[in-house]
Amino acid sequence: VDLCVILDSVEQAKAVAHIAQATGDRIPALIEIDCDGHRAGVRPGDPQLLEIGRLLQAGGAVLRGIMAHAGESYACRSVAALEQAAEQERAAAVGCAEALRSAGLPCPIVSIGSTPTAHFARRLDGVTEVRAGVFMLFDLVMAGIGVCAIDDIALSVLATVIGHRADRGWIFVDAGWMALSRDRGTARQSVDQGYGLVCDLDGQPYPDMIVSETSQEHGILAIRSGSTASLPVLPLGARVRILPNHACPTGAQHDRYHVVAGGSQIVSAEWERFRGW
Amino acid sequence: VDLCVILDSVEQAKAVAHIAQATGDRIPALIEIDCDGHRAGVRPGDPQLLEIGRLLQAGGAVLRGIMAHAGESYACRSVAALEQAAEQERAAAVGCAEALRSAGLPCPIVSIGSTPTAHFARRLDGVTEVRAGVFMLFDLVMAGIGVCAIDDIALSVLATVIGHRADRGWIFVDAGWMALSRDRGTARQSVDQGYGLVCDLDGQPYPDMIVSETSQEHGILAIRSGSTASLPVLPLGARVRILPNHACPTGAQHDRYHVVAGGSQIVSAEWERFRGW
Repeated sequence: VDLCVILDSVEQAKAVAHIAQATGDRIPALIEIDCDGHRAGVRPGDPQLLEIGRLLQAGGAVLRGIMAHAGESYACRSVAALEQAAEQERAAAVGCAEALRSAGLPCPIVSIGSTPTAHFARRLDGVTEVRAGVFMLFDLVMAGIGVCAIDDIALSVLATVIGHRADRGWIFVDAGWMALSRDRGTARQSVDQGYGLVCDLDGQPYPDMIVSETSQEHGILAIRSGSTASLPVLPLGARVRILPNHACPTGAQHDRYHVVAGGSQIVSAEWERFRGW
Repeated sequence: VDLCVILDSVEQAKAVAHIAQATGDRIPALIEIDCDGHRAGVRPGDPQLLEIGRLLQAGGAVLRGIMAHAGESYACRSVAALEQAAEQERAAAVGCAEALRSAGLPCPIVSIGSTPTAHFARRLDGVTEVRAGVFMLFDLVMAGIGVCAIDDIALSVLATVIGHRADRGWIFVDAGWMALSRDRGTARQSVDQGYGLVCDLDGQPYPDMIVSETSQEHGILAIRSGSTASLPVLPLGARVRILPNHACPTGAQHDRYHVVAGGSQIVSAEWERFRGW
């Protein structure tokens, strides 16, 4: 798929058409469909869908198709709910594509996908593209929804123990929210993972040990409230891996990824991150 | 002040002394003092203070002095409470410095400071360094504490209007939490600023308009809940400035600062950011 403008309103279609006419650029555009009332998009059945399509084509832009993102699927808590969200996303997208085509408008692209729905779609009839989100790395939010297992999470922040406060049951590490991000996406899930789940160097979680608090450059490791697990012995200089709530903001706090093969501590590659806008 | 190791425990002092002896490096060190029970540090009066100092000196490290950070001052909500937190920080630091000196240990540096206490200290007797925090930029958290006025905030994120959803009273901009950070530091203050306060290009706030929600690359501007203010007319392409909850994480989302003189839209300099660890 080429880089496309994504839009969902007549005012935006007029603006894109205006720019296309003024510059002579045949701007490629996708119309966003609102499949679940989450944020933005044209609702299925809204007559503005055809008006937007006609304005784009008449103005010299190129209608490439439609896209939908099932933002509400992040609130699903069962396989049945996830499958239903995926089918709702697919049906809304395909229905709108058919409406455009029936009106004589082109719709080569039918793009759907959120991380949960991409993994729970049982049918993809009529779909030409699935945007599978964070599937390559996964994270604790996705594990909390049931999209992956903890062991599937491929991103961690390597941190070093720098101090102890035994009277409070705290272990300090050199990773605060600058290293982990401020994301607390598991706070609304049934298992709140704090600022991250703490693992040994091989990626095995310590029972019920999370990053319970962060400041800018410090993290506090502690046993989850209510657990009977005991704090592991981690001396000064010991290293741990912290699994992130949300891979996107955590990754964005760093300039590069250090790639290690499963079970190994040897960095076999460094991947620079794309940054900026 | 040179780069110093900061420590607050006998185990850390032993580790630093061990490294100093093994390498022959005269590692400079500051002992952290806990002036308010916030996170870390040696409590004033704790005999470990002298033990840490002696271990450092005997091990070949260099005791440079002490430092304190009044982390609890962020919860202060009155000038009297801020002044009291500042004096408590100063008195704890100076008292510990005197205890070290009385025991024949050196303590040339007496470093204090959090953004609130740095601005409300009425005395600095015995202090050699004040770390004034975010004073250069300020932010909405500091305005909420009463350390600065909204007009003092010198950092904003420039964003562009990309859509409207009139039925919900929403204006979409191209700045989500990737541009603003996930910091919600005003959520626990008396005025919750959402993900930021929205201003015109000259930095004048629109009445009661905040970034009410964010997703990764979208922000939603809306009138604060309970306000009778009306949404300003901001057409597609209009630009706004968003004042951040917390300057540190918001700045960290960007590679550089674009410097504009007050009242001007002309970028007179670009400052690259330090990043990484």
